Amino acid sequence: MSDSEARWSPSRPCPERDVPGWDLECDVCVVGFGASGGSAAIEAAEAGARVLLFEVASGFGGTSAMAGGDIYLGGNGGTPAQRENGFEDETEDFFRYMMMAGGRDADEARTRAYAEGALDHYAWLKSVGVPYRNTYIPGKTMMPGTGDCLILSGNEFAWPYREQAKPCPRGHLPEATGETGGFVLTEALSRRARELGVEAFYDSRVVALVQADDGSVRGVVVQREGKTLFVRASGGVVLCAGGFVLNREMLEQHAPIVKELADDALSGGYDDGSGITMGTSVGGVAIHMDELFTTFTLYPPQENVKGILVNEQGARFINEDAYPGRVAYHCIRQTGKKIHLLVDDAIFSQPTELSRWDIAAVGETWSEVEAELGLVEGTLVETVERFNHFAAKGEDPLFHKQPDWLKPLDEPPFAALAMHVGEAFYPFFTLGGLHVTVDGEVLDGEGAAIPGLYAAGRTACGLPRSALDYSSGMSLGDCTFFGRKAGLHAAGRAAKRASA
Amino acid sequence: MSDSEARWSPSRPCPERDVPGWDLECDVCVVGFGASGGSAAIEAAEAGARVLLFEVASGFGGTSAMAGGDIYLGGNGGTPAQRENGFEDETEDFFRYMMMAGGRDADEARTRAYAEGALDHYAWLKSVGVPYRNTYIPGKTMMPGTGDCLILSGNEFAWPYREQAKPCPRGHLPEATGETGGFVLTEALSRRARELGVEAFYDSRVVALVQADDGSVRGVVVQREGKTLFVRASGGVVLCAGGFVLNREMLEQHAPIVKELADDALSGGYDDGSGITMGTSVGGVAIHMDELFTTFTLYPPQENVKGILVNEQGARFINEDAYPGRVAYHCIRQTGKKIHLLVDDAIFSQPTELSRWDIAAVGETWSEVEAELGLVEGTLVETVERFNHFAAKGEDPLFHKQPDWLKPLDEPPFAALAMHVGEAFYPFFTLGGLHVTVDGEVLDGEGAAIPGLYAAGRTACGLPRSALDYSSGMSLGDCTFFGRKAGLHAAGRAAKRASA
Repeated sequence: MSDSEARWSPSRPCPERDVPGWDLECDVCVVGFGASGGSAAIEAAEAGARVLLFEVASGFGGTSAMAGGDIYLGGNGGTPAQRENGFEDETEDFFRYMMMAGGRDADEARTRAYAEGALDHYAWLKSVGVPYRNTYIPGKTMMPGTGDCLILSGNEFAWPYREQAKPCPRGHLPEATGETGGFVLTEALSRRARELGVEAFYDSRVVALVQADDGSVRGVVVQREGKTLFVRASGGVVLCAGGFVLNREMLEQHAPIVKELADDALSGGYDDGSGITMGTSVGGVAIHMDELFTTFTLYPPQENVKGILVNEQGARFINEDAYPGRVAYHCIRQTGKKIHLLVDDAIFSQPTELSRWDIAAVGETWSEVEAELGLVEGTLVETVERFNHFAAKGEDPLFHKQPDWLKPLDEPPFAALAMHVGEAFYPFFTLGGLHVTVDGEVLDGEGAAIPGLYAAGRTACGLPRSALDYSSGMSLGDCTFFGRKAGLHAAGRAAKRASA
Repeated sequence: MSDSEARWSPSRPCPERDVPGWDLECDVCVVGFGASGGSAAIEAAEAGARVLLFEVASGFGGTSAMAGGDIYLGGNGGTPAQRENGFEDETEDFFRYMMMAGGRDADEARTRAYAEGALDHYAWLKSVGVPYRNTYIPGKTMMPGTGDCLILSGNEFAWPYREQAKPCPRGHLPEATGETGGFVLTEALSRRARELGVEAFYDSRVVALVQADDGSVRGVVVQREGKTLFVRASGGVVLCAGGFVLNREMLEQHAPIVKELADDALSGGYDDGSGITMGTSVGGVAIHMDELFTTFTLYPPQENVKGILVNEQGARFINEDAYPGRVAYHCIRQTGKKIHLLVDDAIFSQPTELSRWDIAAVGETWSEVEAELGLVEGTLVETVERFNHFAAKGEDPLFHKQPDWLKPLDEPPFAALAMHVGEAFYPFFTLGGLHVTVDGEVLDGEGAAIPGLYAAGRTACGLPRSALDYSSGMSLGDCTFFGRKAGLHAAGRAAKRASA
């Protein structure tokens, strides 16, 4: 580590009075060029701000570019993709679902703003150049890679969500082949930002905030090509530097359940927590830092959803038609690490590579499967018998799986597929981050905004804040929607200060 | 709110250059006079420091004074109470158990220091004036109020703990009548502190830290009798201001599961999170903030432990002989809020007031009880039949309850006692707090100590940091042991700075 690197740390702000001179000046400084940073930069530039953007990687995209590109949208009667496929989506249903999806501490103001603004946001995404077809893929799918748009990406049709909001598919994918949806999204944002004159510096690590004596944030310290740059931002600094899934120490201090999992962090390579740490270094509060989103690949093939999941006690524990994130949340919290999906010959088919599960046991009777798995005699058999008894009537009184996914598992041979915690693929990323207003202002312990500091995306704690209730598309929806708001507010602050 | 109150906030440090003049000066300033603060003050004063202590309440004690006074001790062959009652307790067993009790992110250095120092700490407590008998109450007990000393206060004999460390009772209660153990403990600490010349200011609210330009902590701002006092501490400030269980906003932002519970916060009245917030205001990191310890009163009578707990699916979910905190952790995370304890005529007895559970159903057969509870037919009956089948052989292959607590529930009439989440008494307090070294130094986001700032007790994240694994006596053990260390280190820093 060079002297200059050792001198600066995200956990200690640089006092403004120690700045030897400003190397660069701007209205809005954006830290990180994923979906949040791109959206913040565009909106700030559209508002007339001079925007500088610093990205630690050698190109745009961040973790967003690795995602499928799914954005959770709806309300106001429905997006074009929803309407064309026969779905009406009232704002109140969308709002109520999103409040459930935000978990026990869902942010009502944020959710309200999003529910009411989602249709306009869709139009904005299109105007920026994100391509969308208005096609729909029915059923349970995950990153189809076909370029189709609308998918079911959450718990909308599953218990208990369907009882509290009229269900509707709301995942919107860009037109993109394979798993390139996130790249297509961030590429469009990057192109638009460039058109608007946003100046992006790559291979540039923001190492600290610059703070004035009055507590406000005045700029950042950047390491670039071995040099230290002091960057003044008259309106504000927008932290869009991702989460902390690659910072093992932070992970274990806040979300130690990660120790149960194989090391399958989802990240573009730089989710080191430095954005969150810079925020807390000037008094920002980080909330819901324990929320580690985890999922798994129950499907495709969607017929797997007709199977039942059992734990080491041979007992069911969840409605298997819930979103795989909700299912995985429960899997990793069972007593014992062995989790099996029970299937019969009627529903079993060779899965795609994505969701290849090992076969742990097969048998002509469930009793044989139970014995082969080494479970306590009678446990698995009784679980299947009870499930079959009610499934034949289209009921699941214990876990409320919807009738579409209910069928007795009674066609031998039978099999148990393994999805063991610590062995199988349970990819994860972090949902906790800086507590912010709807406009992205970072809040201190008294709930007061820290002047000049903003955060968006997974550096903030936004819409998605409950691993148990998350739906695909909430994170990128939050990144782009609230990234825009943060950029706009920072630009407005710059204008106000210039005219003052 | 007066102007002066509005001006200061725990979330914003007062810059030293804004201090108009020091009203009081000391070597070590202790914030809060519970068990941690008392222990810190004593140790600092013993080391020759001039100690000032500020307590927001009108007397000593804090939340510690409301506790039973249980301190978790052992190792080094055993305490006098352990040895006299035939228990040998090797340090390694004590250490291994404490590492399990600390959960997935147990602090090894802290646990090692505690395991090796616990016997000396017991001697110190006696020397300070905390009275102990060397008597033992066998079996499962909770706050017996008899003045006896040694009790079983954790998961030592329960699965899976007993498999990894030789079990031994380690809860040590002061000689005290009724539930006054915590008061007896803090009274002794208070008396000793006074003897040593510690000056305690009551009705005095510490409202902010004073921070120098170099980031170090120089003192505190105190509100007292309508006036603002600036207090200089040459060695350091030791935050012993309790947790945040009374700060509803913080609770919901970090531990939203509290929304599931009835409002049964355990606090002496001032666990408002201000200690933690003062720490984070100068760059301290708060960890494991989601860990909300909850328990319930499964016993006395201890015969209840021979009952079995079932959820809304009529299924067991935990070995009922685990510590009630572990059991409660699982109860509040089941699908559905209704939790029942199933007992038969042989084990049912009128409980003491402490653990009075409502009778939800009775029947001559388990089938009648199942129907009366409205559970799905066959679920509860099969659960009991399987349990009885194995219990008759002294086995519990599913949840590993120990043989002492296994008996078939086969003597009618049968009953289901209700312990429903959100209705029943699940008292709770917070375990998350500032990340500190073994000596109580508060750490920033880079893991570097913030000069002049210390924390102990529930303002810090100490030994107890896992609601799932907690044992009674860990919190007060942590408060007193690491409160002492923090006081000593701060006194040493004062001496070093004086001689520099």
